[in-house]
Amino acid sequence: MAAQIWQKALLRPDSIALLGVSDDPLKTSGRPLRFLRAAGYGGAVYAINPTRATVQGEHAYASLDDLPEVPEHAFILTGAARALDALEHCEARGVAVATVLATGFAEAGAAGQENLTRLKALIARRKLRVLGPSSIGLANLHNGMTLTANAAFAEPDLPTGGLFVASHSGSLIGALMSRGKRKGLGFAGLVSVGGESDLSVGDVCMAALDDPNVTGFLLFLEHMNHADRLRDFAQAAAARGKPVAAFKLGRSDAAAELAQSHTGALAGADEVADVFLKACGIARVSSFEGLLDVVPLLARVAPTAAARPGRVGVITTTGGGAAMAVDQMAARGVEIVPPSAQTRAALSAQGIDPGESRILDLTLAGTRYDVMSAALKICRAAPEFDAVLVCVGSSARFNPDLAVQPALDLIDAPGHPFAVFLVPDAPDATRQLAAAGVPVFEDPETCADAVAAALQRQVPALPEPTVAPATVALRVLDEAQAYACLSGVTVADFIELDTAAPLPDLPFDYPVVVKVLDGAIAHKSDAGGVVVGVADQPALAGAIRDIQANVARDRPGHTVARVLVQRMCVGVGEVLIGMRRDPQMGAIVVLAAGGIFTEIYRDSVMRLAPVDLAGAQDMIASLKAAQILNGARGRPKGDLDALAQAVVAVSNLATDPDIIEAEINPLMVLPQGRGVVAVDALIQVTAQ
Amino acid sequence: MAAQIWQKALLRPDSIALLGVSDDPLKTSGRPLRFLRAAGYGGAVYAINPTRATVQGEHAYASLDDLPEVPEHAFILTGAARALDALEHCEARGVAVATVLATGFAEAGAAGQENLTRLKALIARRKLRVLGPSSIGLANLHNGMTLTANAAFAEPDLPTGGLFVASHSGSLIGALMSRGKRKGLGFAGLVSVGGESDLSVGDVCMAALDDPNVTGFLLFLEHMNHADRLRDFAQAAAARGKPVAAFKLGRSDAAAELAQSHTGALAGADEVADVFLKACGIARVSSFEGLLDVVPLLARVAPTAAARPGRVGVITTTGGGAAMAVDQMAARGVEIVPPSAQTRAALSAQGIDPGESRILDLTLAGTRYDVMSAALKICRAAPEFDAVLVCVGSSARFNPDLAVQPALDLIDAPGHPFAVFLVPDAPDATRQLAAAGVPVFEDPETCADAVAAALQRQVPALPEPTVAPATVALRVLDEAQAYACLSGVTVADFIELDTAAPLPDLPFDYPVVVKVLDGAIAHKSDAGGVVVGVADQPALAGAIRDIQANVARDRPGHTVARVLVQRMCVGVGEVLIGMRRDPQMGAIVVLAAGGIFTEIYRDSVMRLAPVDLAGAQDMIASLKAAQILNGARGRPKGDLDALAQAVVAVSNLATDPDIIEAEINPLMVLPQGRGVVAVDALIQVTAQ
Repeated sequence: MAAQIWQKALLRPDSIALLGVSDDPLKTSGRPLRFLRAAGYGGAVYAINPTRATVQGEHAYASLDDLPEVPEHAFILTGAARALDALEHCEARGVAVATVLATGFAEAGAAGQENLTRLKALIARRKLRVLGPSSIGLANLHNGMTLTANAAFAEPDLPTGGLFVASHSGSLIGALMSRGKRKGLGFAGLVSVGGESDLSVGDVCMAALDDPNVTGFLLFLEHMNHADRLRDFAQAAAARGKPVAAFKLGRSDAAAELAQSHTGALAGADEVADVFLKACGIARVSSFEGLLDVVPLLARVAPTAAARPGRVGVITTTGGGAAMAVDQMAARGVEIVPPSAQTRAALSAQGIDPGESRILDLTLAGTRYDVMSAALKICRAAPEFDAVLVCVGSSARFNPDLAVQPALDLIDAPGHPFAVFLVPDAPDATRQLAAAGVPVFEDPETCADAVAAALQRQVPALPEPTVAPATVALRVLDEAQAYACLSGVTVADFIELDTAAPLPDLPFDYPVVVKVLDGAIAHKSDAGGVVVGVADQPALAGAIRDIQANVARDRPGHTVARVLVQRMCVGVGEVLIGMRRDPQMGAIVVLAAGGIFTEIYRDSVMRLAPVDLAGAQDMIASLKAAQILNGARGRPKGDLDALAQAVVAVSNLATDPDIIEAEINPLMVLPQGRGVVAVDALIQVTAQ
Repeated sequence: MAAQIWQKALLRPDSIALLGVSDDPLKTSGRPLRFLRAAGYGGAVYAINPTRATVQGEHAYASLDDLPEVPEHAFILTGAARALDALEHCEARGVAVATVLATGFAEAGAAGQENLTRLKALIARRKLRVLGPSSIGLANLHNGMTLTANAAFAEPDLPTGGLFVASHSGSLIGALMSRGKRKGLGFAGLVSVGGESDLSVGDVCMAALDDPNVTGFLLFLEHMNHADRLRDFAQAAAARGKPVAAFKLGRSDAAAELAQSHTGALAGADEVADVFLKACGIARVSSFEGLLDVVPLLARVAPTAAARPGRVGVITTTGGGAAMAVDQMAARGVEIVPPSAQTRAALSAQGIDPGESRILDLTLAGTRYDVMSAALKICRAAPEFDAVLVCVGSSARFNPDLAVQPALDLIDAPGHPFAVFLVPDAPDATRQLAAAGVPVFEDPETCADAVAAALQRQVPALPEPTVAPATVALRVLDEAQAYACLSGVTVADFIELDTAAPLPDLPFDYPVVVKVLDGAIAHKSDAGGVVVGVADQPALAGAIRDIQANVARDRPGHTVARVLVQRMCVGVGEVLIGMRRDPQMGAIVVLAAGGIFTEIYRDSVMRLAPVDLAGAQDMIASLKAAQILNGARGRPKGDLDALAQAVVAVSNLATDPDIIEAEINPLMVLPQGRGVVAVDALIQVTAQ
């Protein structure tokens, strides 16, 4: 199969060509040859440099055409100007994968534009698969394939192991590798994905998925382009039980802007990315060190089917050290659970005073191997915990035999997963634990970040991908048309009136609200197109005249031919429900507190659409304003069942590819048993 | 002066007695002698052990009475049972300071109670000053006074330098020392403060304040007991320009509970601690590593007179690395400022392409000494920045001469303060920079935590301490009495009515609200004691009857003798203003969004009381709900000037020691120019 050829050529090629390799081993374009030789790569390496007979002491070929075989993988080290010729040459010769170092393909004016067209055409042909542009290269540490210009690979003893890194940023590959090495973590592969003109983070990881050397994946993401490929990879990784962790830039607006200017890609809204990664079963960490530290823990904590905060039991030889970790875990929603009466009894039976605290502080029992070992065994079997955290104080630095050794001895024994937080600087203990596969953390913040990410990771729960609508012209429906689309959501009684016709008797009671009915006027209030509290028929006639006058003033020449008259309606509270489409991650359903509080308190919840009833109920439970709707402080309870059904109904609009965006705002939530009622709706559809 | 004697005896004694020292150098009670000898302490050390002729090869004295001199400092290593006798003996002999290792003074039932009484009496006499109980000891690394039982001091090369640590947790002393050593930071002193029966964190730091070896203070706090002493120390430290940083447990409720059970002390609400530390000019960090890393930066960033977010310019050799730091800084409110046109021009003139980004990415210019040096000089002189952050990528690990050396060379040159974030693991560069006094960070989260804490640190702004009221019986004023206390705040028109008397004509218009008037019924609505929307006199009579009936049902036997009748009043919005007293940190003024939103969105702001007008305006600006009051989304603007004056007025209640707590809820904010109106108030006073 074609896919297998490029996947092998990407990470396990038998032959490599270096196009434009420099004779100077210290130069960027000279490094790959130096690193490949230093790492002892066993395949064939062909140096191509038309201006020299030798390169770094090796024979230099003038061209791809001169090689004794067609190389599987070419690393194009030339400038942007000549890189495209090189790519086309590789394609013509039947090279499977080319990695492109150069940047600036799309940035060089008219010539750049032509380059881009040629690159797109080449990629569309799918003969040659391309990593980059702007890829600093990639490495497979298990076969010595250090095909990279990253100076970090001058590292004397490359740390080999099971972690596979894919990163939008090339420079952070080196930072991850050096930090992992210090901790005693090892890597199977590290890939600078670059501009993703063809192969994306998801593709690259997919190529490594069935490599038996790879035990887990680390993603450093600057944006969410090619989310579809990431989604496919995440599902495949989950099926194989290989954990995936991600660090994504862009929590702050400033960083989102930077990621954008840095990569030229449009950064997806970070909140959507959060929802998407969670639905993919990818553990998103918030700290850079956490990206490295979380994977060994993920390997031992199974993802959950339903959302959970995670229940952690804490054993410690230092009260202050444990308190820091507890503080940070609790801040991330993790529950710090005290030992049950049964667990206390089991500890007492072993001569360990469990104390009265929420954590099991062994200070009084003494920092001893037998005490820690017994406590860890008992807590790993206690049903009140999902996982156990062991905090080790000063002894970890000088006497790892006391409280660190039990963790080493018990890691593969049955019981809950556990992790170790080393409170002092204890580099030897860190490396020993990491080498044995024990999840180990060096500071309380990273520890809590990783523990929360691991315990709260869910199995992938991805709705069927909705068909991405073509980017065609859009049309805004008028309010009555919008209501017609809202199957499954009750709409407040209304009629449409022709402003030229005599006023009929209304089929419902006054007071009413009168609104201009015209898809061209999306923001009706701003145009003076809404009159509320209309008490009777003469007032209705007056309201229509006012709306006509207001709209004529607001939009000269625009006449109001139709109005919508709707029954006034007051609920226990009001919410917003919306469906919109992220170009990369797909359709999203949003539930938000109504009115001004949405903006001020940013009280909203998002999920990939569509959601089922359980998903909708989960969204409602996550909305802070739901406390008001749920009868807080003696208020009447709202009909949250009907609200959940409305969320499901709006989320289902995502399955209609002609509906681009929909919003009910407000949806009035009536008292329990009386339902919910939409009193305004805005829907955009593809123009037909 | 007496104070100077104990201060010297605490940290710079000429003679030390070890009471109950063990012959076994590995035992807790044997360690101090071993550590003092290993560190080469130059003063006299007297081993006291009545059961042995020698201890660890040294002569053992049977008693304090046998020593050739009165020691300045005694370390009492006995169990709790004998520690108190030892303390009284020290006092009788004229020892200046005693440190007590034992815990459990107050925990041992009736005997413990007696011990506590004796300890309190001893401390009240102020002859002998006491560190502990539960102090694992203290160290002055500059004179070899490692008077500690903390196993961490087995460290072979103790890292000497300028940092002074005071910690409620003894075990974290070791963690801080080992982590600092790894980074190349050095310590002047480290004190386990323990139970603070006498000397508190503030006292201990005060004793080190004028030690020329001490350049900055690190506090690890589990609670805010003895905040008054901390306050005095913080002001003295600010006067001398010695920076103070604090890490405090208890951000989460779980940790607050733990700190409480751990120390037996009542943990102060964390939000109050935040406000208090800020007002003290103490930089509070959120990360444990940040506590170590922030001090060198504080030493170079002057505190500000007015609140500011801090404006940072970023120079980097790695886009991805800088983006992580930017993301984290922006999340903490720091402004990431792009180079101005002038700065860009200056960079271009040096041949450095400043690019178009918010950060100065030197990737294209190349990682070179001359480029980094020129860029740093230019940015340190640019008026748009308060400080500069330099992010260094892979070169920091292998080629520190390229981008690290410029920081070393420029640290003492004039210009804005700057800090360095090392993106890879680069231990040599970290130590070199730290040794030279360059603020250096090893991960983006700690970097941002410290940069924000340093730039946002203000000069101490502490109101005069209000007199702490005696803990006497309290009395709740009735609503009319409460209004009488609110000088400076307009109250909605009201009259008091005797329910037995005929109804008068009201001096203001209907509709009115009728409320039971009785200090014993603080929660009037809950008792059915409030009727709103009373339209006329017959309705008023009915409302009074209803209230009488409701209250009689709610509190059998309780008759309603008086009601308060008040004009109904609707504002642009409503808020809560309160004054309360923290037993440790003093009086606090709180401003919160009104109604249910306070609870759900926790939208409130706190300051030490009293505040001036500028302080009140700053509080209003920090309240999210102020957006509503300030005319968001076309709403009418509220009278924020009057609101600020009301905040000042309520905060001034703190100067009356008889007022324990006061709350106006709600205060209606009327449209601009029309003021604010209190429509309910609750005040507690001391019972006279």
